[in-house]
Amino acid sequence: MIEHTTHIRVRYAETDTMGFVYYGNYPLYYEVGRTELMRSLGIPYADLEAKGIILPVTKIEATYYAPARYDDLLTVKTRIEKRPSVRITFRYFIYREDTLLNEGTTVLAFTDAEQHRPLRPSMEIENLWNEYFNY
Amino acid sequence: MIEHTTHIRVRYAETDTMGFVYYGNYPLYYEVGRTELMRSLGIPYADLEAKGIILPVTKIEATYYAPARYDDLLTVKTRIEKRPSVRITFRYFIYREDTLLNEGTTVLAFTDAEQHRPLRPSMEIENLWNEYFNY
Amino acid sequence: MIEHTTHIRVRYAETDTMGFVYYGNYPLYYEVGRTELMRSLGIPYADLEAKGIILPVTKIEATYYAPARYDDLLTVKTRIEKRPSVRITFRYFIYREDTLLNEGTTVLAFTDAEQHRPLRPSMEIENLWNEYFNY
Amino acid sequence: MIEHTTHIRVRYAETDTMGFVYYGNYPLYYEVGRTELMRSLGIPYADLEAKGIILPVTKIEATYYAPARYDDLLTVKTRIEKRPSVRITFRYFIYREDTLLNEGTTVLAFTDAEQHRPLRPSMEIENLWNEYFNY
Repeated sequence: MIEHTTHIRVRYAETDTMGFVYYGNYPLYYEVGRTELMRSLGIPYADLEAKGIILPVTKIEATYYAPARYDDLLTVKTRIEKRPSVRITFRYFIYREDTLLNEGTTVLAFTDAEQHRPLRPSMEIENLWNEYFNY
Repeated sequence: MIEHTTHIRVRYAETDTMGFVYYGNYPLYYEVGRTELMRSLGIPYADLEAKGIILPVTKIEATYYAPARYDDLLTVKTRIEKRPSVRITFRYFIYREDTLLNEGTTVLAFTDAEQHRPLRPSMEIENLWNEYFNY
Repeated sequence: MIEHTTHIRVRYAETDTMGFVYYGNYPLYYEVGRTELMRSLGIPYADLEAKGIILPVTKIEATYYAPARYDDLLTVKTRIEKRPSVRITFRYFIYREDTLLNEGTTVLAFTDAEQHRPLRPSMEIENLWNEYFNY
Repeated sequence: MIEHTTHIRVRYAETDTMGFVYYGNYPLYYEVGRTELMRSLGIPYADLEAKGIILPVTKIEATYYAPARYDDLLTVKTRIEKRPSVRITFRYFIYREDTLLNEGTTVLAFTDAEQHRPLRPSMEIENLWNEYFNY
């Protein structure tokens, strides 16, 4: 398993009339989580794009347990729990202190930026998965 | 079953560097879909809030089949497929012409705006469900 | 002068904890206003981009007179008041019924999408300005 | 003068089809700038709201010099240059390394959250201005 933790301060822009973070903004927090996880692995997403690889999201699931509010300092734990193939699944756990507010999963597909076709990750990336997933 | 159809024009703001609608913006389209469905039923969400009822989202699922792009005119079909209780499930189907681009589900909870407790919908709303769901 | 009127329904996503439309969302409404004005002139912005012309914003000014709220049906009046050159200035007036809520101005620059250099608009566009601005 | 510096990492969500940060997202960066400046002064905006004071924006001006892109690490310098009264003016300067990308100004009004009337800041805040602006 690969895990990475980062922090996000809730912006006023991200809240809504209820005084909660709007449900559609959690995907942005997930994006921050997986961006920072990938940077920590030495494969920043910006570098993938520069090599003609994009990672569109093909599936999302999220459960909202409790609301986040303006100025909350959130902890985002992001995990890759199973060896990625053409698809890569990230899981996210968003906390305010010890309270789990939100949990989510996204599936992304390694895709050729030009032809929009699925793409096997490079040997460099395959080797990276080998380090973490011994099967 | 209750079904309602509305249309959304993709804004530039909603696209990203890939040239696609950012995955986190589909929940906004779902919101438009369910807002217009509820208005068509005679229970605009704004009226519920005025009566102290809020409908926070507790769960979302979405599948992305093909990208939407700037200025696309999308069709959003929104459905309530089963009789709501304290929870109400909406399903969404987003098309560009005949192509299904995205499909999603959200679960929302009728909630007391003051005490943030689950709330049974009013008789007026119960009667409305009775019209559509004969069980 | 060129003027065009369109309508926008405020989304819950666009509001904030104050219960008002977040100030950073008015530029999105301006975008809708100028997109629809350009479409009405027969030069949809999407077509310009397809021809390698982009129109980045170089300047914005906005004044907020009164808040817009969730589900408000806004009227957006968009104007080109002076003949565009390499730069094009749009003015926006956002109303809820007869109340002016917000007023803004954006300056955009006709730009080569490849080289990111300023670009004289095509003869077709120049002729269009000739129809409206007789000087 | 009061000055504060903070950093923002550009999210994919904030970019658009041009590959640039969407012009309507700079106000979000300004919000982060002034939030962190106020926190550094010992008057976090969340505390003001808890006391029934809101600070809606009444005016914005921004100039866009050069685009920011996905994953750029931006520096936001925020300044209060003149003694606030009922209104408070913030200036923002957004850099990528040494390049000034964007410059903006917002005016906000100390406002009673209940009655939506202009409000004189508390003695505590007046004393704070006295420390920085000797007139």
